[in-house]
Formats: sequence, C-alpha cells, structure tokens
Amino acid sequence: MTLPNLSIDVDRFWATIEASAAIGPGRKGGLRRLALDAADAEMRRLFTGWCEEAGYAVTTDRLGDLFARRPGRDESLAPVLIGSHLDTQAAGGRYDGIVGVLAGLEVMRSLDDLKIETERPIEVVNWTNEEGARFTPPMMASQVFAGRQTLEWALARTDDAGVTVADALAEHGLAGEAPVGGRAIDSYFELHIEQGPDLEAAGVPLGIVTGGYVARGMRIGIDGDNAHSGPTPMHRRKNALVGAAQAAVAVDEIGWRYAHLDGKTTIARLEAWPNKPGILSSEATLFVDFRSPDAATTQSMEAEIRAALPEAARRSNCTVTIVEDWTFGGPAFDPDLMDLCRRTAERLGVATLDLMSQAGHDAYHLSHLCPSVLLFTPCVDGISHNEAEATTAADQAPGVTVLLNAVAERAGVGP
Amino acid sequence: MTLPNLSIDVDRFWATIEASAAIGPGRKGGLRRLALDAADAEMRRLFTGWCEEAGYAVTTDRLGDLFARRPGRDESLAPVLIGSHLDTQAAGGRYDGIVGVLAGLEVMRSLDDLKIETERPIEVVNWTNEEGARFTPPMMASQVFAGRQTLEWALARTDDAGVTVADALAEHGLAGEAPVGGRAIDSYFELHIEQGPDLEAAGVPLGIVTGGYVARGMRIGIDGDNAHSGPTPMHRRKNALVGAAQAAVAVDEIGWRYAHLDGKTTIARLEAWPNKPGILSSEATLFVDFRSPDAATTQSMEAEIRAALPEAARRSNCTVTIVEDWTFGGPAFDPDLMDLCRRTAERLGVATLDLMSQAGHDAYHLSHLCPSVLLFTPCVDGISHNEAEATTAADQAPGVTVLLNAVAERAGVGP
Repeated sequence: MTLPNLSIDVDRFWATIEASAAIGPGRKGGLRRLALDAADAEMRRLFTGWCEEAGYAVTTDRLGDLFARRPGRDESLAPVLIGSHLDTQAAGGRYDGIVGVLAGLEVMRSLDDLKIETERPIEVVNWTNEEGARFTPPMMASQVFAGRQTLEWALARTDDAGVTVADALAEHGLAGEAPVGGRAIDSYFELHIEQGPDLEAAGVPLGIVTGGYVARGMRIGIDGDNAHSGPTPMHRRKNALVGAAQAAVAVDEIGWRYAHLDGKTTIARLEAWPNKPGILSSEATLFVDFRSPDAATTQSMEAEIRAALPEAARRSNCTVTIVEDWTFGGPAFDPDLMDLCRRTAERLGVATLDLMSQAGHDAYHLSHLCPSVLLFTPCVDGISHNEAEATTAADQAPGVTVLLNAVAERAGVGP
Repeated sequence: MTLPNLSIDVDRFWATIEASAAIGPGRKGGLRRLALDAADAEMRRLFTGWCEEAGYAVTTDRLGDLFARRPGRDESLAPVLIGSHLDTQAAGGRYDGIVGVLAGLEVMRSLDDLKIETERPIEVVNWTNEEGARFTPPMMASQVFAGRQTLEWALARTDDAGVTVADALAEHGLAGEAPVGGRAIDSYFELHIEQGPDLEAAGVPLGIVTGGYVARGMRIGIDGDNAHSGPTPMHRRKNALVGAAQAAVAVDEIGWRYAHLDGKTTIARLEAWPNKPGILSSEATLFVDFRSPDAATTQSMEAEIRAALPEAARRSNCTVTIVEDWTFGGPAFDPDLMDLCRRTAERLGVATLDLMSQAGHDAYHLSHLCPSVLLFTPCVDGISHNEAEATTAADQAPGVTVLLNAVAERAGVGP
C-alpha cells in the first residue's frame, strides 16, 4: 500500500522544546545542562514522564541512556531507533540534540493520534554525554552502545573536578540495569539542527547528510620546566605555556591556509600547570582538531601540523609531542535510508539538500551497528554551541514530518 | 664600642631548614606548601613552637602574619624586623623564603647563646601568601602591613576554588587578633636566596640588593564568541583561545628582542571559558609580566606590547584589552642599611656583590614603611621556583652570620 501523508502536532512538539528550554538556563538565554548534572536529571525526569504518560515503557541502561518504546505488531523484530541527546554545552543552545529526541517523541505520539500500528517496535533514545562538555570524549554512550568502547572505559571517564561518570550517574540515580547495547537495532534515524548556514541560505527545510567532514583530533603535550618568572633569562626559560601558545598559533594559521577548501582548525582546549604568576609552567596540554570535506585535504593539513610542531618546540625550548590522536567523519550513512528520506520528502513536497556534516553526532557511532541516517533542519545564521542558537517551529516542522513518515514506512505500516 | 664578631650555630640553623623541608613535600623532592593550606598550618605550628620554646612571645595578626619577639632593653623603641615567608610555590623549593624566616630565628637564638641584650626589640616575621601561588597577588600581607592595601581587600582575595583568604584563615584557625601594621618599625632585614646565578658564578657568598628590576604586569582580557568548532568557517570564528595564544606569542617574542638588555617577558597564566572541545571559547584571560634593569627599557617593552595587541586581535577576530596593569621594582633599599651590611661583611671577611633583584619580595613593600635592606645568598645554578632548588649550609652560613652581626649593631649592643 501507499502510505497516506501523516502529520505531526507542531504545537505539541514545540511545547516540549519550550519546556526543555526552561531546564538549566544559561547566562544569556540558552542552556547549560551538562551531562548527568542536576538540570540533566530534571530534564530526564520530564522526558520520562511524557513517555510514560503516553504509555511507552522506558528502559534505562547502565550508562543512563533512556529508551522509550512503542511496541510493534511483531515484538520479535528489531526496533527502529530515533534519537539524539538532551545534554548541552556549557554555553549551549535550546535545540542542539534536543530537537532530535523530542522529534522522536512527537513521531510516536503522532502515530498514536493516527491510531497507526507498525510492524516493528519504535524506540526513542536519549544518549548520555553526547556533548562531551562535561566528560571527554563526546558521543560517549553511543560509542559504547555500538560496541566501539567498553562500558568500564566510559564509567571511568572523569570531569574537571575528578568525578567519574559512574559517580555522576549514582549522584542523581540515573543509571539503570539494562546492558549498554548488545541487541539488534533495525535502523537509526537522527534529526539535528544543521549547526551551519547552508539550509537557511538555500531556503530549504531539510538536509540529507551524506557523510561527515574528515576530522582529526590531537592531544598535544608540552613539557618545559618550572623556574622563577623573574630572574630566569629568556634563553634559559622552558615555559610550557609559551610552547602551547606557539603550537596553537601555528595550528590556527594552517586552518587559514586551507580555508579556501573549507578546511578549518580549532584550538579546542589549553591546560597548563601550575599556570600561576611567579613561576614558569612546566606542563601544558593542547587539544586541537582540524577537518575538511575530503580525506586527502585533511591528510595534507595533518602533515603541515606535524611539520609545524618542532618549530613551536624550538621557539619555546620545550618538547612538543602528539600524545594521542583520533579520527572521525567520512562516509557513514545508509544509501537506502537516505533514499527513503529523499522519496518521503518529495512525496510530502518538502525540498531537500544533500549536505555533509561538519560536527560529530551519535549517528556516526550507530552507523557501525545498523543502517543509519542523519537529517538536518535549519538554524538561524548557522549559529550553534552558543546560547544565541535559534530556530522556529515552522522551520522544524517539515523535517519532523518527513521523519514521521519515513520512520512509519521503515517500521512497516499496512495490512 | 666595637662589636665582637658574633657567630651563628650553623647546624642548628640547618636543622630547622631540614625540618621545614619535610612539611608539604612536592612531587619531585621540593615543597608544595601553599598559603594557608594544611601544610602551611603545620609549618606555622612548628615555627611557633620553636619560638615559644626559646621564650619569644608570638603575636598573630588578622592576616595570619606571625611575629616572634625578643625583647629589647628599651621596650618603648620600635623593633628591628627580620623576615620572609614560609609558604612556597605549587612546585617550589626548600629555601625560597624559608631561609629568611629561619635565619631570623637563628639570629635571635644566637643572641641568646651569646647572652647579648639589644637596646631595641628584635622581631622575626613570617608573611602570609608571599608567593601568590594560591591567592593573587603575591606579597599580599606585607602590602597590607605597609599600608599599601586594606585588610578588607586582602581578606576578600580568592583562590582557584573560590575560597577567600578570610575563609582559608578560618579553616585552620590561622588568624589572630592583632591589627595588620599600623605600628612603628625601626628597620626591616630580609635575607633570601638569590634565585639567579650571579653569586655562584662570582664565588661570592653574599649579595647586597641595591634595587629591583623595573617590572610591569598586565591582565589581558580576550573576548570572542562561542560557536561550534565543527561547521563554523575560519572567517566566522572568534575563538578567545586563539586571541590569547596570539597575544602570548607576541609578548614572548618581545622578550627575546630585549634579552640583550636583560629584558624578559613572561606568559604567566592563561585561562579560557568554556575551554572545551566542541565549542569555541568566548572568553580568555592572559596574565603577562615583563621587566628589565631600568625604567626606560621597561617602558619601551611596554610600548611594543601595547602595539602588538591589536594584531593579536586582528588575527583572532577577538577584542584584546588590557584590563589591569601594575608596576613593581625600581630603587627601594636604604643606603645606610646597605652600608651597614657591607661594612659588617667586610669586618667578618665575607665578600659581597651589589646586585639587583629580579623578583618581587616583601622587602619592597616594607621599604615604603621603614628603612629596609634585602640580602641575597647563593643558590645552585640560579634555579628557583622549581623543586630542584638547592643550596648548602656552608653557602648560607656567611650570609646568616652577616645578618646576625648587622642586626645586632642596628638593634644596639653595648653598655
């Protein structure tokens, strides 16, 4: 059968977004809802309440991931999973991640309204610590769910105060008994604001993400030596802060040299010890990342960065070493699911644009476990990870409607 | 009368240094005894115990400064004050500051041994938070004692965890009832390790400090904007960490350009917010300082730094502002006291060298209150503010002996 065009309740969906926007307010109108903090716990309670009122069983796994399940006609089938995250950056917006989880809830509620049963169960997930704003790395729980890291590894991550994920889960009673992953998932749908300007610029409400920019991250260690900041002459100084600043400037300038290819470099984090007046710092750590649309360009940027670090070392009399590095991005998403979303959008009269993602998303990890798709919706001026992040119900509605119809088709509707 | 040559008990003096070296051990053989922490409290108890056993009344003022008093024949006369500090850097040595306080104790004990009365009382002081390793700025308490800042200002300073000086004093019961300053002091003697290589290189055991390098400090504020570190193109980034790194590199390079004049610049501290992967930092603070032997050179360095900051701003798309600045150093010490120390050393057969100080010392603040003198003793290879800081009893003994004889003369001995 051909599926009829299904509709969401935009006002109800937007009411959930606005309720979320009141929990963990930031300093400038956005949100500060760090993974597993008190605000995150409150948001989880609200979300769980909505799900349970609607009759969806909510399961919590040992990393605090929440799964709300709408049963299928055949409960032996693997579920279609929709999700994203409810945590935010320290100075985050109201939509990043949140739109994806609450769109999943709206999909299930709309199916209820329409009294539509699906063959497969549908589940909505809220992943723990997607942002990495409290615990490094980001996309922590989806990585474990997809079998790419161990539960023990995740539970032992610490925040800046030395609190482990395990302790943070225990503090607000956010860990459940369910194992993390280890079960079949039919497919994964993630809807997310674009965090870039392309959809808005093109006047198109939905992006089909074909893959990610090829991104590399590095933790760079700088070793110098403590000395008095007064008498020590310049040539005897080994100030790790100077080494870190030299490396940071070099990496930043490489970003500008690749900007014409849409390459970019980020000075993400700088720590030094003791980092105090009166004494030269003996140790520093610099986190950088860099990315471009293709592997060859990213590789070339990496070669330039590696070549620049000895100069930073020379200028600071420190040693500068790449302690750890990692890669993410590249092609990831399922062609059939992308086609399903494109066809569904066309049927609904929603224009789409093929895009690449420039940020990390849980969908990247899920793509190693099951066919996955990532959909982008517009955000004003491409501003994200900023309290000024903005969008409207009208700009989100087409994407959520496509998600509803595509998920319904994937989960199986009909006699 | 001509004073006989008085001698210290080197072994007793060195035993106090070694007892101090066991309190608050660092990671690499030095000390981590931050102002008003548990180790500092323990060291203060030990020092107070030694003083009280010797019969010296110990007074504590409201900032925790400890004064041990050996009475004079005329108690109406203002005391001769000897002192320094028992706190250390986070990765500090065993001698910086400590030698000066314990030398003062040894002076009083030696006078007891020799049954010498002085006209004036003699006091030994341990100043609170000289290092500034916990509470900014350094030389905090001597600044208040000399009437250059208010008690309320000092009590409200906070450490990195937000603990005020007032709360830290209360935690270990380290505040007394005595007012901070506001009384007459005849003269101030501070003996300190050189923290530079000149005495060792010259084979001379005692330096007479004629004044300080002219030093300037700045707190530089960098304002950018939060944004996602993935999609945001280079030309739209306003990463405050990049602004701070650009400013740091510029200030460091100005130090090298003045190294031939013994100028030096220090990147002292860098903080950023949120300073996390995934988000560009919107705010950073950079503390720098710079110094040279003369005011004109330091002024020229300052002009170059001020001229360089707009370029750091341009390269990072941030605003870069000098939020606060300060000056220290310059000529400070009393010619008569310097002469007294030179003459005393000559009489004792101790060679001396006139030196400039390149670091801050409590004696600078005291010089605004009373005639003051600063004496330097050798340290191995000029290494200081480093756990490897080293010296020997034999290298310290000549300086402490000169201190004993000079203080005795200043305090007045004779019929």
